[in-house]
Amino acid sequence: MAKEGADMTEETEYMIDKNVSKEAENVESSGDAKEMRAVVLAGFGGLNKLRVTKKAMPEPQDGEVKIRVKACGLNFLDLMVRQGTVDNPPKPPLVPGFECSGIVESVGENTTGFEIGDRVMAFVNYNAWAEVVCTPVDFVYKMPEEMTFAEAAAFSLNFVAAYMMLFEVANLREGMSVLVHSAGGGVGQAVAQLCSTVPNVTVFGIASCFKHAAIRDSVTHLFDRNVDYIQEVKKISPEGVDIVLDCLCGENTAKGLTLLRPLGTYILYGASNMVTGETKSFFSFAKSWWQVEKVNPIKLYEENKVIAGFSLLNLLFKHGKCSLVKSVMDKLLCLYDQKKIKPVVDSLWALEEVKEAMQRIHDRGNIGKLILDVEKSPTPLYCMTLMVEGTEEEERVGEMAINWQL
Amino acid sequence: MAKEGADMTEETEYMIDKNVSKEAENVESSGDAKEMRAVVLAGFGGLNKLRVTKKAMPEPQDGEVKIRVKACGLNFLDLMVRQGTVDNPPKPPLVPGFECSGIVESVGENTTGFEIGDRVMAFVNYNAWAEVVCTPVDFVYKMPEEMTFAEAAAFSLNFVAAYMMLFEVANLREGMSVLVHSAGGGVGQAVAQLCSTVPNVTVFGIASCFKHAAIRDSVTHLFDRNVDYIQEVKKISPEGVDIVLDCLCGENTAKGLTLLRPLGTYILYGASNMVTGETKSFFSFAKSWWQVEKVNPIKLYEENKVIAGFSLLNLLFKHGKCSLVKSVMDKLLCLYDQKKIKPVVDSLWALEEVKEAMQRIHDRGNIGKLILDVEKSPTPLYCMTLMVEGTEEEERVGEMAINWQL
Repeated sequence: MAKEGADMTEETEYMIDKNVSKEAENVESSGDAKEMRAVVLAGFGGLNKLRVTKKAMPEPQDGEVKIRVKACGLNFLDLMVRQGTVDNPPKPPLVPGFECSGIVESVGENTTGFEIGDRVMAFVNYNAWAEVVCTPVDFVYKMPEEMTFAEAAAFSLNFVAAYMMLFEVANLREGMSVLVHSAGGGVGQAVAQLCSTVPNVTVFGIASCFKHAAIRDSVTHLFDRNVDYIQEVKKISPEGVDIVLDCLCGENTAKGLTLLRPLGTYILYGASNMVTGETKSFFSFAKSWWQVEKVNPIKLYEENKVIAGFSLLNLLFKHGKCSLVKSVMDKLLCLYDQKKIKPVVDSLWALEEVKEAMQRIHDRGNIGKLILDVEKSPTPLYCMTLMVEGTEEEERVGEMAINWQL
Repeated sequence: MAKEGADMTEETEYMIDKNVSKEAENVESSGDAKEMRAVVLAGFGGLNKLRVTKKAMPEPQDGEVKIRVKACGLNFLDLMVRQGTVDNPPKPPLVPGFECSGIVESVGENTTGFEIGDRVMAFVNYNAWAEVVCTPVDFVYKMPEEMTFAEAAAFSLNFVAAYMMLFEVANLREGMSVLVHSAGGGVGQAVAQLCSTVPNVTVFGIASCFKHAAIRDSVTHLFDRNVDYIQEVKKISPEGVDIVLDCLCGENTAKGLTLLRPLGTYILYGASNMVTGETKSFFSFAKSWWQVEKVNPIKLYEENKVIAGFSLLNLLFKHGKCSLVKSVMDKLLCLYDQKKIKPVVDSLWALEEVKEAMQRIHDRGNIGKLILDVEKSPTPLYCMTLMVEGTEEEERVGEMAINWQL
């Protein structure tokens, strides 16, 4: 793995361009005129590894649905994919993206349950950030009529993950308390909404100060991510909390365990602290990995505590739990119909604006979900930024000029 | 702790006798003529640290119930107490024992809910192995009419622990599978019975071969503890199991985690592998502790697994969860009334036979629960054994002559 890491840092613009031109050749040589736009990650690394290019249009295989994509969800995990710090990523060039919404364009053989024209949302094992995707029917769900495509792309991953953590892993019940990091993010907002469907649940949220005004009503208590939240929570609830949801990892794991009440459950559902910058990410990642404090089961025994890990993508694509996820999705769509939950969309971005969108999520600037809107044209400022294939610093200067009021 | 361990091995018969005579002095000097029989642990170590002696009768304090004890439960944990390998044990001499049944003899001030003559079962924070105990009212429960005192002493700890692990920590539901070590023991039999109250639950039990005939009907699949149970379970259920209940610790922790299905829960509820012999136990304990494989939370994340620790005694006496335990006890007594569960009693022993009873549980000879029957007289053979204050080897020779058909 160390070798792979070293290779990654040696990727150059030259390689990216070569790959892109190779792909273009493939498209032409196959004689297939059908093409689509897609975001392509040329190699693991910084934002400059991303570009929008033409790719051959996929066709649905047995049991697959072909979707004309309208909107795609952007998650912190996509940053980890870009940096190559997820477990067993495919070899680049690759099209990132794990969820989308759109319209069924055709279905493969032996595919039942969907018809051309159906409005759907879907999980995809990579390849979501494109104009067209194909994915097995098990990962496709019909959208409620009143749901927009942007909402649908913001719904699947965040709400399914939040629901499964709260109710499948941790067994949330009346009167319990929940601590959630990144309370302003997509999962954080889904967690807050789902907690409000259970009577008398106290939600402690942690978020950057500038988000507090926007999300104050969604949680019971809100703390700045830069304060000592352990002390703050203990002032209000000296016994601690019943559930800690942590997407950060690192030192928060030990802190989270400290905060648990007896029989409480700590759930690690991400490791965003492992994304520390634009470059040399693999080494930061390896360092963070080894620094995560390991847990002695006997300590859990003495303290009556539970520690869990939750990865929805692994559950879907590695562990074959799509029927369980389907049943969860049914429950969630029920709650949506009852207007008890509603995805929070932070902002919409054109495919060509994916770098700026990624930087925003990296900087934790978002409140709710970032969406790639496939039909959106990039704003002139972004086009300018895209044309500057400069250094990381130049990109940052460009981003500082961005007006977030979309 | 290392110093304490070294001290323990220096304990001598002389010290024990000195302690006993000191206690006798205390009883006399207090001018209190009321005395009771109790099992006293003079110091941490082997079986020879135990004896039955007279102690001052306790009187109930505010909020306490005084119980004339009829039967006491003997648990593997009591062996760990004897060896001093539990977390923060009291300083010996002490009276062991955490659960009993009996009749309310009096109540302290501000004690409501119980009257003299009530048949009760109770948790006690040590001191259960005596003719009389006092314990806070929160730890006392009325016995169903048809329940015997022996059954009641076999009920509380095992069934509450089994219930809370299956339903509070792990959320057992229809169609799930459970692996339980020591399936023939008190908790193992309670687990098997509680699993049978949920439709279509598969129970994989592990037990010594000689118990198989007796407990075959209580579980779905039964394996010898000496075979490679991982392979055997995977032959039947290649995906693994949903819940692993482990009272052994050590290498079984890693094995248990391997066997878990995605979203499965491994629960460590004891550490009986840490009791390895009669002497030098502290060092075996420390060695085992450090050899327990620690768990990386990120691995749990990738594998979608849950690891939990469960200690009912800590929950009751350290973590203040007696109202939760009370609600669990209510549910269990309901199941008992419906004849869906029934404690399995292995054997009854006089207080004076506590060494033989402990050896039996150490050797994992029991099927179900060992009970100290306070009103039972020791059988002549045991009396003989008790009179021989010999070496460990001599004691073992004595025990080999015991006829287990009680």
